[in-house]
Amino acid sequence: MNYLWSGRFSKQLHDLAKRFTFSIEIDKRLALFDVAGSIVHAMMLMKQKIISESEGKKIISGLKQIRKEIKSDTFVFKADDEDIHTAVERRLVELIGPTGGKLHTARSRNDQIVFDEKLYLKQILPDILGAITIFQKTMVTKAERSLGIFLPAFTHLQPAQPVLLSHYLLAYVSMLERDKKRIKDALTRTNISPLGACACVGTSFPVDPEYVAKKLGFDGVFNNSIDAVSDRDFILETVCCLGILMVHLSRMAEDLILWHSPLIGFVDLPEEFCTGSSIMPQKKNPDVLELIRGRTSAVIGNITGIFSLMKGLPLSYNRDIQEDKRFLFETCEISYLSIVIITKIIEKTEVNPSRMSQTCRLGYIEATDIAEFLARKGIPFRQAHHMVGKLVEEAEKKGILLKDLKESTIKKITGCSDAVDFIRQLDFEKSINLKASHGGTSIGEVKKELKRWKNILN
Amino acid sequence: MNYLWSGRFSKQLHDLAKRFTFSIEIDKRLALFDVAGSIVHAMMLMKQKIISESEGKKIISGLKQIRKEIKSDTFVFKADDEDIHTAVERRLVELIGPTGGKLHTARSRNDQIVFDEKLYLKQILPDILGAITIFQKTMVTKAERSLGIFLPAFTHLQPAQPVLLSHYLLAYVSMLERDKKRIKDALTRTNISPLGACACVGTSFPVDPEYVAKKLGFDGVFNNSIDAVSDRDFILETVCCLGILMVHLSRMAEDLILWHSPLIGFVDLPEEFCTGSSIMPQKKNPDVLELIRGRTSAVIGNITGIFSLMKGLPLSYNRDIQEDKRFLFETCEISYLSIVIITKIIEKTEVNPSRMSQTCRLGYIEATDIAEFLARKGIPFRQAHHMVGKLVEEAEKKGILLKDLKESTIKKITGCSDAVDFIRQLDFEKSINLKASHGGTSIGEVKKELKRWKNILN
Amino acid sequence: MNYLWSGRFSKQLHDLAKRFTFSIEIDKRLALFDVAGSIVHAMMLMKQKIISESEGKKIISGLKQIRKEIKSDTFVFKADDEDIHTAVERRLVELIGPTGGKLHTARSRNDQIVFDEKLYLKQILPDILGAITIFQKTMVTKAERSLGIFLPAFTHLQPAQPVLLSHYLLAYVSMLERDKKRIKDALTRTNISPLGACACVGTSFPVDPEYVAKKLGFDGVFNNSIDAVSDRDFILETVCCLGILMVHLSRMAEDLILWHSPLIGFVDLPEEFCTGSSIMPQKKNPDVLELIRGRTSAVIGNITGIFSLMKGLPLSYNRDIQEDKRFLFETCEISYLSIVIITKIIEKTEVNPSRMSQTCRLGYIEATDIAEFLARKGIPFRQAHHMVGKLVEEAEKKGILLKDLKESTIKKITGCSDAVDFIRQLDFEKSINLKASHGGTSIGEVKKELKRWKNILN
Amino acid sequence: MNYLWSGRFSKQLHDLAKRFTFSIEIDKRLALFDVAGSIVHAMMLMKQKIISESEGKKIISGLKQIRKEIKSDTFVFKADDEDIHTAVERRLVELIGPTGGKLHTARSRNDQIVFDEKLYLKQILPDILGAITIFQKTMVTKAERSLGIFLPAFTHLQPAQPVLLSHYLLAYVSMLERDKKRIKDALTRTNISPLGACACVGTSFPVDPEYVAKKLGFDGVFNNSIDAVSDRDFILETVCCLGILMVHLSRMAEDLILWHSPLIGFVDLPEEFCTGSSIMPQKKNPDVLELIRGRTSAVIGNITGIFSLMKGLPLSYNRDIQEDKRFLFETCEISYLSIVIITKIIEKTEVNPSRMSQTCRLGYIEATDIAEFLARKGIPFRQAHHMVGKLVEEAEKKGILLKDLKESTIKKITGCSDAVDFIRQLDFEKSINLKASHGGTSIGEVKKELKRWKNILN
Repeated sequence: MNYLWSGRFSKQLHDLAKRFTFSIEIDKRLALFDVAGSIVHAMMLMKQKIISESEGKKIISGLKQIRKEIKSDTFVFKADDEDIHTAVERRLVELIGPTGGKLHTARSRNDQIVFDEKLYLKQILPDILGAITIFQKTMVTKAERSLGIFLPAFTHLQPAQPVLLSHYLLAYVSMLERDKKRIKDALTRTNISPLGACACVGTSFPVDPEYVAKKLGFDGVFNNSIDAVSDRDFILETVCCLGILMVHLSRMAEDLILWHSPLIGFVDLPEEFCTGSSIMPQKKNPDVLELIRGRTSAVIGNITGIFSLMKGLPLSYNRDIQEDKRFLFETCEISYLSIVIITKIIEKTEVNPSRMSQTCRLGYIEATDIAEFLARKGIPFRQAHHMVGKLVEEAEKKGILLKDLKESTIKKITGCSDAVDFIRQLDFEKSINLKASHGGTSIGEVKKELKRWKNILN
Repeated sequence: MNYLWSGRFSKQLHDLAKRFTFSIEIDKRLALFDVAGSIVHAMMLMKQKIISESEGKKIISGLKQIRKEIKSDTFVFKADDEDIHTAVERRLVELIGPTGGKLHTARSRNDQIVFDEKLYLKQILPDILGAITIFQKTMVTKAERSLGIFLPAFTHLQPAQPVLLSHYLLAYVSMLERDKKRIKDALTRTNISPLGACACVGTSFPVDPEYVAKKLGFDGVFNNSIDAVSDRDFILETVCCLGILMVHLSRMAEDLILWHSPLIGFVDLPEEFCTGSSIMPQKKNPDVLELIRGRTSAVIGNITGIFSLMKGLPLSYNRDIQEDKRFLFETCEISYLSIVIITKIIEKTEVNPSRMSQTCRLGYIEATDIAEFLARKGIPFRQAHHMVGKLVEEAEKKGILLKDLKESTIKKITGCSDAVDFIRQLDFEKSINLKASHGGTSIGEVKKELKRWKNILN
Repeated sequence: MNYLWSGRFSKQLHDLAKRFTFSIEIDKRLALFDVAGSIVHAMMLMKQKIISESEGKKIISGLKQIRKEIKSDTFVFKADDEDIHTAVERRLVELIGPTGGKLHTARSRNDQIVFDEKLYLKQILPDILGAITIFQKTMVTKAERSLGIFLPAFTHLQPAQPVLLSHYLLAYVSMLERDKKRIKDALTRTNISPLGACACVGTSFPVDPEYVAKKLGFDGVFNNSIDAVSDRDFILETVCCLGILMVHLSRMAEDLILWHSPLIGFVDLPEEFCTGSSIMPQKKNPDVLELIRGRTSAVIGNITGIFSLMKGLPLSYNRDIQEDKRFLFETCEISYLSIVIITKIIEKTEVNPSRMSQTCRLGYIEATDIAEFLARKGIPFRQAHHMVGKLVEEAEKKGILLKDLKESTIKKITGCSDAVDFIRQLDFEKSINLKASHGGTSIGEVKKELKRWKNILN
Repeated sequence: MNYLWSGRFSKQLHDLAKRFTFSIEIDKRLALFDVAGSIVHAMMLMKQKIISESEGKKIISGLKQIRKEIKSDTFVFKADDEDIHTAVERRLVELIGPTGGKLHTARSRNDQIVFDEKLYLKQILPDILGAITIFQKTMVTKAERSLGIFLPAFTHLQPAQPVLLSHYLLAYVSMLERDKKRIKDALTRTNISPLGACACVGTSFPVDPEYVAKKLGFDGVFNNSIDAVSDRDFILETVCCLGILMVHLSRMAEDLILWHSPLIGFVDLPEEFCTGSSIMPQKKNPDVLELIRGRTSAVIGNITGIFSLMKGLPLSYNRDIQEDKRFLFETCEISYLSIVIITKIIEKTEVNPSRMSQTCRLGYIEATDIAEFLARKGIPFRQAHHMVGKLVEEAEKKGILLKDLKESTIKKITGCSDAVDFIRQLDFEKSINLKASHGGTSIGEVKKELKRWKNILN
């Protein structure tokens, strides 16, 4: 078999070496991008008179035929197709003869693969961005409908202070807004074309890299050919950004898994996103969410992998870098599917408002309000905090609520007679609406946030 | 569609949820292990009279039919096969009717999957051990044939002291011996059967876990059903052990990549394990070795992934754990293939002894011998070291070898007239044979090692 | 300043380079091990007549003085002490003059540092093993006292089947038993002395590595000098083993954090291992457990770090390897402290048995028992499972327990009249005792396990 | 001892728990930031009349006193200082009495710690950016002075094509320009103040978060209090960005370590950034560069650690998050020091131009030029590539250069008589200047790049 490179070789590549080096299985998903890039490369070669017009047209029509075959799933990969570039060039020569061998003029697989990977990202990252926006809109709609529902906010998985469910949901909208910004920035940095760098030093042909870049919507071209073929920053950065997104989704998954447990019972997850047990007939397990949490680990593994891969490689290209795709594709696909699926789950999850509000009764959740009340009366906050600590200790000992403490006890501990009334009348909605500071959980602040998000997202 | 678990569900599983939760693509390689385990499970059910003899025989014959189908690649996976266990049970019912539904008696997928994974490891780990032994034998043979070849040992990629090539090669034999021991220990700990733990609490059927374990060559059975289904230590440990093995292979790959560079030129790698460049016709690249180095990063990513996956999961089984296979299978397969392929490369690599010995001339590599000589003459080693440092500085300034330093210079710096003779007559082979301490590089010590290894490996 | 190595250098080490290369801050904890090793090295040099008896005695008495200074915290590290070996040798020369410079005869920092690290591990790993045993004993005692308490076992954080608390606690005893075995195996592989390998090729002095090894309790000595100074397997393996241990502790921490949440309320953590909030006076947060969970991530980071560090390093020693200590020490110290502290927490945690048993009422936890009952009546398990699924659906719709379903409903769905009685009389203790299979949760099996553990641990 | 939170607690914190939970050792470096933030917080409380003017002034003057103590290193940390916030408040109360207890009004440690960490990043990230600019300027200067020097560019550590050293150096300038952009984007996203979110729900005090934010140069304030205290994106993102920077520096370190090896001999590293061996007097090791490469692994470990830490944490704050600082500080400090030190090394490294150009003679590095020449003559590139492959095979067999091949051989293989002349006259400088495509290595293109960089950097 002749490979793209086998001119000087007198021995055949060992079968094990083939199995070990061939990347076609993973590369396949780059097929359409490879062809799209090759068409524009051929147009450029033609425009620059590096190949003749008739050669160019022949090549382009061959490539279009290949594109059709790929789309209709009739393209046949062969055992000796080393990678996607080889497969396409091999088929091209089958279709149009030796002229096909002119396509690789002024190009190396070193710049071509970066080009293909960037075309892939130019498609999937906007898809992910779109999916995040749908997630955010779903959350905002849900938040708007949940304005009357309250639950404890948790710190350390302990009830902390009462909070509107809407406020809770909007926290995730804020979080994922940062993801969008990060992904957009990563996309901007990705959007620089490497084509024309060739193996690593440029070429003696009068190529026009700007032309190729513009035709495919790149913002600019590389400035240093060595850097262009060595650089995988765009993959490192993408994988990191998606890793942060997945961390967010894993946290949301954790919240929902907890809330769906009958022990907590805040929500009932949609049946069509749960599965059961092969032995226990009663189970309705939050499997999809557990897998989002679990696959976050796969993404973290990919981050580790790509960093460990690139660390300490000398310039310029080394074959190790081929492995970048393993980490990239899996990460992109997990991320896209996870954001889409969690949106569907959110949409159909049913909330149990009475269970949520009941649990506000656990754990003396109104204690901070009392401490802040005392502080407003002039007691240094640190002392106020200690006084309320004592009230809680007292109530806990007796197994009663703070509002059921004796007047004398409250007065004795706080030294503040107004405190009695404040404590007696305090309920969870009042507590929530006391948090009228910017970004707080009062209904006024939450409504402001809802309005802001609707403006941003529409 | 009915799943193993769908009795209580009134809604169909969402298509996205299917795509997200189904593991059949990855599971497939467990097919034969799953069937093997199921046959023994059925035998046990029959023996314990949990199912009747005729039911048992029917089930076993169905399973054998399935095994045939899998081996001949005629087993058809269906779109609704959630995982390998489901696929097998579905086909069993197709073949033998509702009796097939009795196979899952006294068993859950929770214990079954651990069982299947362990059967997989009981096959692939011995394969890896065997491949390491072949590697070691190849190295020992190579080392035996290389007794006359010397090169600089490196520290910090700087020539340190002259060393026999055989000594260098045997370093890798020692290294991989530790891998074998670690893998054997991991295998011992893996070799405990979990079957009978069911979902997590055991079962009300009078099962005989010992019987199943013995039939399939396990050393024993679990003692705590909750632990049995929660535990993935055997995967964590296996992945770590193989990670260490891959670190070793990556170091060897690095050495060979360096040595194959024309700049260094110590070896010429076999053509059938090199590939070329699509643009640069002269290239003969060490791609396979670069990929071994690169895939070590994939394995490191898998280690990170499985640790991050298991961290902080509450007992007992959680669906996140399904993802363990992603990390395990890839790691095992990379490791096995890497050790096999690097053995083939070693076998056929040609060494350039004259280039190796020439480079001993670089970098005043005999300096330590001189310092040790002076120390033997009674000069505190620290001072001897400083004196030789001065000799090197002097020689470097003049651009000459140490043996070409003037007698007076040597005497002035060392204050030791014997030093002149010692320095003048010192050559690399003498230097090597001076290292006659245990485990050192002298020919005597190396021959002892060769003998030791041949005893161990045969 | 003169360093151990500066003979040939005419320029001073740059201040930034010092700050960057000096490892003394981290090394400090090796001080006593370095001195202990040096004393035995000096004894060996003396025994082998490489140094004279009087020199040897002088050196040893100097080293003993240094040991005293270190123990009494009066040893003064100086700004130019590059590492612990340098600091000790510098002080030795201060104390006994130039003879101190003879200590480094037939030794390099390359073998010495491995030696020191191994001495460190020979101390801390047994400490960790001891702490695990105390943990196990505490758990066994706790389990013995908890035989009457039951709770739901969870899968997917959903109640699965009722289980004895003792069975649950013993799951952790089993888990950590594997840790002990792994750590012991790691220790065995660690316990091979590298001293005598020198820089990487051995030495021309007639050293006796066996003597040194025996004196310090090593099981044997290295066989290949290059391997001896390049090898950090013992660190990779230790860090992995402790990583698995930490994964176990993090899972236990997660369980306890969940159980301590007022939403679940299974346990009340001891106040002296909780902290509060600076603003919310009522909080009693499980901080220590959260930190165990969090520091597991530090350990996972260390595993990644050490693997990434060693990957692809050419033989033999490279300075990168100095960083191994960063990962090793932190991992050992986190692990040791975590196991000790979680034992104390377990000891003092109060269980709420009534809350535990109440929650067995959630989620139709007895469903599997009914399915197994039907299967014992001859219905294929798969069908029995579906029938009970229907019962659960029916009961859920009506918001009632399974035992409150109408007789006619039960008969209609199961077609089995005995089922009615079975369902009506089923309670959680009966359910638990049905699991009398080996390793199951029945009281009989759990008592067997308790006995087994008491034998092993005493 | 009273902690900030101990009002409700009747037992003392266990000593082990203290040792385990206290973070003061790591926090210390936040001291000045904590005080700076507290001063502005006090100003805001005063402005909003939450505390009186006299109270405010007292508090601020106390804080200024504390700042002085910290700067002069006279601030005494006490055994019971839980964290930096506690230490400062404790000292404040010592200095000004119970009024000090008013400082914590309308603030929680949950928002305060994020605030402190962000202030830290607002200082160190610009420092790192500045250091990168100095690196770039140093490289541009070096590149400008190296215009006459050429060497082989490498792919797979094999000589690929001749290249100007300047082009090589500028590749690193391009690389680190992307780091600057990424770090700036991260800084923008970091520069949002969380103060006012309190524990997680906002506060009942009429705070003015905008005021605080503006005073300390933040671009804006948080919009959702739950998100504000849960979010560690700014740390995840920073650590990733610096990880990519370190990957770049590790690659450069690898290049320089290779080049400094006497086997390659391209450069001579400055003595003041090398160290020697304790046993081998001749060694001049590239330790600092090896440590840059090695510490890249520490940073990769930190990335893994922080991702694993944050994965799956429920909202809002959990104590695990305290560990973020462990990863953040080390990463920032390694990165800053590495970039500063590698700049110094570059500045003083001496290049060996004749050794560089000599090695262009290795490996038939001009082969691509010939293939491109043939392609320009109309031969499809793929065929041209194969022809030159044959020329190389022929020359290799004979052990001669391509230009020394017989005319007849060249004609026979290429079928192109012009090829003979082209091959005969080809030299490395001609080859370099043929690469006149955009971003290529021709002197013209490199001069353009130099000009572009000088404009950007000045």
